[in-house]
Amino acid sequence: MSRDELTKIILPEDKLPKFWYNVQADMPTPLAPGLNPVTKQPLGPADLAPIFANELIAQEVSTERYIEIPKEVHEEYKKWRPSPLFRAHGLEKALDTPCRIYYKYEGVSPVGSHKLNSAIPQVFFNKIQGIKRISTETGAGQWGTALSLACKMYDIEAMVYMVRVSYNQKPYRRIFMEMYGATCVPSPSPLTESGRKALAENPDTPGTLGLAISEAVEDAIGREDTKYSLGSVLNHVCMHQSIIGQEVKLQMEMVDDYPDVVIGCCGGGSNFAGIAFPFIPDKLKGKKVRLLGVEPAACPSLTRGVFAYDLGDVAGFTPLLKMYTLGHNFVPPGIHAGGLRYHGESPLVSQLYHDGLIEARALMQNDCFSAAQLFAQTEGIIPAPESSHAIRAAIDEAIQGKEEGVARSIVFNLSGHGHLDLAAYDNYLSGKTEDIEFPEEALKESLKTLPQV
Amino acid sequence: MSRDELTKIILPEDKLPKFWYNVQADMPTPLAPGLNPVTKQPLGPADLAPIFANELIAQEVSTERYIEIPKEVHEEYKKWRPSPLFRAHGLEKALDTPCRIYYKYEGVSPVGSHKLNSAIPQVFFNKIQGIKRISTETGAGQWGTALSLACKMYDIEAMVYMVRVSYNQKPYRRIFMEMYGATCVPSPSPLTESGRKALAENPDTPGTLGLAISEAVEDAIGREDTKYSLGSVLNHVCMHQSIIGQEVKLQMEMVDDYPDVVIGCCGGGSNFAGIAFPFIPDKLKGKKVRLLGVEPAACPSLTRGVFAYDLGDVAGFTPLLKMYTLGHNFVPPGIHAGGLRYHGESPLVSQLYHDGLIEARALMQNDCFSAAQLFAQTEGIIPAPESSHAIRAAIDEAIQGKEEGVARSIVFNLSGHGHLDLAAYDNYLSGKTEDIEFPEEALKESLKTLPQV
Repeated sequence: MSRDELTKIILPEDKLPKFWYNVQADMPTPLAPGLNPVTKQPLGPADLAPIFANELIAQEVSTERYIEIPKEVHEEYKKWRPSPLFRAHGLEKALDTPCRIYYKYEGVSPVGSHKLNSAIPQVFFNKIQGIKRISTETGAGQWGTALSLACKMYDIEAMVYMVRVSYNQKPYRRIFMEMYGATCVPSPSPLTESGRKALAENPDTPGTLGLAISEAVEDAIGREDTKYSLGSVLNHVCMHQSIIGQEVKLQMEMVDDYPDVVIGCCGGGSNFAGIAFPFIPDKLKGKKVRLLGVEPAACPSLTRGVFAYDLGDVAGFTPLLKMYTLGHNFVPPGIHAGGLRYHGESPLVSQLYHDGLIEARALMQNDCFSAAQLFAQTEGIIPAPESSHAIRAAIDEAIQGKEEGVARSIVFNLSGHGHLDLAAYDNYLSGKTEDIEFPEEALKESLKTLPQV
Repeated sequence: MSRDELTKIILPEDKLPKFWYNVQADMPTPLAPGLNPVTKQPLGPADLAPIFANELIAQEVSTERYIEIPKEVHEEYKKWRPSPLFRAHGLEKALDTPCRIYYKYEGVSPVGSHKLNSAIPQVFFNKIQGIKRISTETGAGQWGTALSLACKMYDIEAMVYMVRVSYNQKPYRRIFMEMYGATCVPSPSPLTESGRKALAENPDTPGTLGLAISEAVEDAIGREDTKYSLGSVLNHVCMHQSIIGQEVKLQMEMVDDYPDVVIGCCGGGSNFAGIAFPFIPDKLKGKKVRLLGVEPAACPSLTRGVFAYDLGDVAGFTPLLKMYTLGHNFVPPGIHAGGLRYHGESPLVSQLYHDGLIEARALMQNDCFSAAQLFAQTEGIIPAPESSHAIRAAIDEAIQGKEEGVARSIVFNLSGHGHLDLAAYDNYLSGKTEDIEFPEEALKESLKTLPQV
């Protein structure tokens, strides 16, 4: 079949990549080291050992280009990987664009998102170290669901602190996690010192990812049997997600195409990193490929933040990381794309953005919802509100291509479905979704509290 | 790779069957004709023309063994077909069974179930006849969602009457349909004579599929621009679903296996027919393959009904069909598997059951929910409550195989995911799901009202 006839591009199971790609091997500017939040000295493995499994700490600082995927993890990946790459014929037709639009659909994983790509190896490396219990945070619930399933696979107890606004908006997420035997509580919770402090200061707080991280880390530090697990931001998470972009490259080869622009939404950064980083080596060799991260206008760390050392959480348990940040005390408005409500951006994405290898764009919520609706009506799939940011950007690129008379090849990461976000779409369809004004004053105040390094 | 190493068995896109299989060509006992509900005379095309598109009427009575899938429909199928056949390694391990368990996963369709297999051709054949609007009923919402998307694809207006108990249990389903631009109302509704009559008799009725069908048919009869569309029961619907079983046969060949038992849940029958009917020719040639339909104990048309002419709906708009039935006035208890709450069973399934080519089994709701939970925890996927009936039966077959020391090959139809049914699972997890006692008296009363033929 010719390139334009195919609807879905399926990579054979035996072509599933056997290695993760580690962009740290190819960074023009090496990452600034993480710092101990108290001593402000560069982190050593001993700083992280109470929090993370050893193998994940090793991956965090590795500069090896390829790290082998353990056989056991590779086998689990095969439950849904390689995931399909779709040609968006329906959407292209609706836009009447000469551009070719492709989407990598990560919603085929049993939990409905890309998050399982990192949850499985994270839990696996905890398991072989003998860990019995894992604590984590979740924003929209995608990561919490993935970690819950991975924990069930390896018979490990899962404890999930879910950002309260999402917990209330998406009640089905808690049930999803409970089906896998996990415990899920709204954050801030009365179970931790950080949670109690936040509740005392503001009993009505919607919560933030930064605060939920504090609770989960505090939980792990306080118990011998428990480690913590993070669903984005960190280097090893971005690396696990590289399976996405590696597959995309092979799938594009199958139809003899190569993207002009690769798009992903940016919260903590692993979603975008997963699809974009495997294109970095090509770009460094001179290939003309644009890598576009899309963030919500309500929480625009790349486009409105500063590139500085900051804490990953509210309470100050995490290392200081050099990243684009709105300040760890910034409380983003309660938009529906809860997975993008994080004050910072992955240090890897941040450094590459700083070095000009990556572009960024911030979009309003309602523009993303309208894109999601058009996508659902032309391609059938109801996307996650987070992924709808990538869809909007892809549509805008395709419209621009039409205006310029350029048949661009556009690829985006459809990181998850929105079956558990239908209440958000109900709000949108009934005209109740506001485009909240950006809290400029809150940002100014928050940036004043950046740690001195 | 050897048979036992594979996790998912993927049929290449160019092997997607190009024909539907029509079991009417191979029935040992031909179907009894449908009858006009007033004259009691065998139906002619003129009886059905006000309700259905002409091509669907022709398919309904065809005895051709293979009917070509139109190119346009085949192209749409490719958006998600061939669907994967999974080997349930995780479930097998948990059961410690020597049996091989496979499941055909229809939840990969954009609407999350097998229903799109028939919605697309039904809307397509209406479209080429110039129809502008389609009315239908839906139980659990799976069919209504599929029809809504298919209508959007072909720019046809969709009007969905949703059984009230499901409408209330599954609020996300309405939103799903609205995302595709459809209108969805709870049934009984004040919009039709049938609905108003039912509401007058019992304002608190949970509704039934039979009643929702009456409303949708009444809607279609009353408008020049509208035809009606049914998501199960009828011959053409079962035929469209044969794409499932045809793919399964090819996929089993790919791993050099053949099923000892093929399992599907039975509501109207098209789900089970879809996976099972393509095995009928083998069975007639002497192959030892069991075909097992699983129904809810709360609505057991095959195992507790009578084989007789009955109406397909409550109000008497539909033809009389010879089928296993609990009587068109039977109101099944409001179980969560709303898609299985139908008083009758497909005439094709009924006749084949009557002739001993098919087995049937009725299961209690809580046994199916516990099977669904085990499945989610071992295979990752949250199944639809309807599909959980097939899972329970597959598990029981695998346990029996272990007890007997027989390594059976078991295949079942995982007809959809349960992402929109999580409220039902919440009830189950919190111990609130009752195994309702079967309403024996109501059945007796209902059977008294069977039409005299």
